[in-house]
Parts: sequence; C-alpha cells; structure tokens
Amino acid sequence: MPTFHIELFEGRTVEQKRQFVEAITKATCESLNVEPNSVDIVLIDVKRENWATGGRLWSDAP
Amino acid sequence: MPTFHIELFEGRTVEQKRQFVEAITKATCESLNVEPNSVDIVLIDVKRENWATGGRLWSDAP
Amino acid sequence: MPTFHIELFEGRTVEQKRQFVEAITKATCESLNVEPNSVDIVLIDVKRENWATGGRLWSDAP
Amino acid sequence: MPTFHIELFEGRTVEQKRQFVEAITKATCESLNVEPNSVDIVLIDVKRENWATGGRLWSDAP
Amino acid sequence: MPTFHIELFEGRTVEQKRQFVEAITKATCESLNVEPNSVDIVLIDVKRENWATGGRLWSDAP
Amino acid sequence: MPTFHIELFEGRTVEQKRQFVEAITKATCESLNVEPNSVDIVLIDVKRENWATGGRLWSDAP
Repeated sequence: MPTFHIELFEGRTVEQKRQFVEAITKATCESLNVEPNSVDIVLIDVKRENWATGGRLWSDAP
Repeated sequence: MPTFHIELFEGRTVEQKRQFVEAITKATCESLNVEPNSVDIVLIDVKRENWATGGRLWSDAP
Repeated sequence: MPTFHIELFEGRTVEQKRQFVEAITKATCESLNVEPNSVDIVLIDVKRENWATGGRLWSDAP
Repeated sequence: MPTFHIELFEGRTVEQKRQFVEAITKATCESLNVEPNSVDIVLIDVKRENWATGGRLWSDAP
Repeated sequence: MPTFHIELFEGRTVEQKRQFVEAITKATCESLNVEPNSVDIVLIDVKRENWATGGRLWSDAP
Repeated sequence: MPTFHIELFEGRTVEQKRQFVEAITKATCESLNVEPNSVDIVLIDVKRENWATGGRLWSDAP
C-alpha cells in the first residue's frame, strides 16, 4: 500500500525499468509520506497488437 | 475513458483482434455517446493453464 | 472468457449500463464467435478526482 | 463471482498451479458458501524484472 | 507476491471477509510454500448493477 | 501508454491526490521520455477492511 500496476509498451530494457521504479517510488514516498518498502510496483509489458485507441491497434499505427 | 481490459484465451490472430477492437469501440461510442479516441482497449492473452473455473485449469478440460 | 473490466466515469444510469453491456456482449459474440454466456463484464465507476491525464485530475478540468 | 486475479512470480509448474487453484476454490466455497463453478481464477505470471518493492526490482535482489 | 485481487458481490460482512482472507492465505501458503506475510489480498466489492453475464446485468436477474 | 492503476488506502484528500499524480507524471516523463499527455493514472481508494496482509485485514491491525 500503495500498489502500482503500470502498463507500458513492451521493449523497455531492464535498466530503464530499474530507473523508472526508483523514480516512481521516490515520488510516491515524497508525495504520500510513506516508507519505500510499502511501495509495490508491477510492470505489465503490452504488445502493440494488444493495445487499441480509437478502434485501431497500435501495431497498425502509421 | 472508458478504458477496457479484456482477458481472452491466447490464440487469436492479429486480424481477429483488429476486428474485435473495431466492433467494441463502435458499440461503445453508440451506447455511451463518446468519441472513438476516448476509447482505450488493452487485450490480455491468457494461457489455458492460467485460467481455472470450478477449481479446474482450462488446460485440463476434456 | 472473455472477461471485461471497463472503467468509466461515474454517473451512468442503470439503463445506460444495461444498454452498454448488451451492445458490448453482442459485438463480442459476433467478432469472436463465442456464446453470450461466456462473456463477463465488470464495470468500474471512477470518480473524476481519481483519474488523471497529463498530470491533472479530471475533477480539475476546466 | 467471485473472480480472482492472482499475480505470482513466474516459474510455477502446471502441477503446482493445478493444486493451487483447487485449494483456493475449495477455501472459497467453504468460506463464502458459493458453488465451485462460480469461482473463476486467472493466474498472472510475473517476471522478477517486472516487480519492484521499495524501489528495487526483484531481479536485482541479492 | 503472490498478490490477489478478488471481485465479489457487495454485501459481505467484515466477519465474512476476515474468515475468507484467513482461509485463502492458509490455502496459498500450503499450496505454494510461501510465508503468510508475502500474501496480499485486495477485495473488490462489486454492485450487481456493475456485473453482467450473457449481456444481462445481475441486478436484472430474476 | 503508460497507464497506471494505483491502489491506496482511502482517506487521501483531493489536494494530496493532485500533488501525487503531478509527481508521478513528472517522474514518468523524465524516466521513460514520454509526453505528459500519454500518462493516464487511475487511483483506487481501498477500505482497510478490503486489504489483507498475512491473512489479517488491515482494519484489524492493532
């Protein structure tokens, strides 16, 4: 508590994920005044063929 | 807004997903009177070994 | 299977939800060739103070 | 209804998943007095590089 | 890890929830050989007007 | 894309939520090099009687 689920397009490197969860955790602790260990983050890699906006798959975007 | 998360068994082709998100987006715009670009859809491919009903994995279904 | 989770701003009437789930279920059965009873839909009413885009709460939108 | 989404680290065998969903379904039926067929469970295999606690990816844990 | 999200119709008492999470946690520890403190459970109370099967809201069920 | 779902105990004020989503959006744009408008955040207020760790509801915590 808090627990994050974050969907992002697949393709990020482990190093990008590492920096991202550090930044999110830091921002959360400062904003909500909670301890780092209370922050759980799950990243969900989403393929472009599995995400659509306006009825069009992102894998079909020009 | 609205944002959809739709779990379905893995195995759909990209063409099936393409038609599916088009149909869902159209039905949503007509029912809720929203713009297509406000409709986001995330598809989640689920393996049969990861879905159970009545305590039995679907990969074990006869 | 398939199972839908749909987040939308709170304020829809039951009649709007009724028509919406009917339309989504029909579109799903036609697109994916599944039986209506296999379609489960959960609607999630979201307050405008609980949804943000671009770092701004929708309750703060002009 | 009820519907479960359970995130766990990837690496479980199908046999472990089989026993797990049986046990969860049994515990649910006894606690909530529902029929087994009303219990749906979706398992989500999460990579250690996609789960962070305290700002550190589990793939980086010593 | 594991983390549960469990959707159930609203109306359960706190005592029912208490027994339910105890039973689920116990079943999980025995099946997956994990420590109780690693089991997180979030319950989601769903109104019958927000759940549909076969295109019909459960609030409309006879 | 990315889309956040963040569960936190109920009780935060709108001002706290406002600052929180600003901080999360800023941290995300810096870490992932994305535009603010691509960041969607949904907050989920969870009652203490609906969250359990180690088989105990947080509403029962001493």
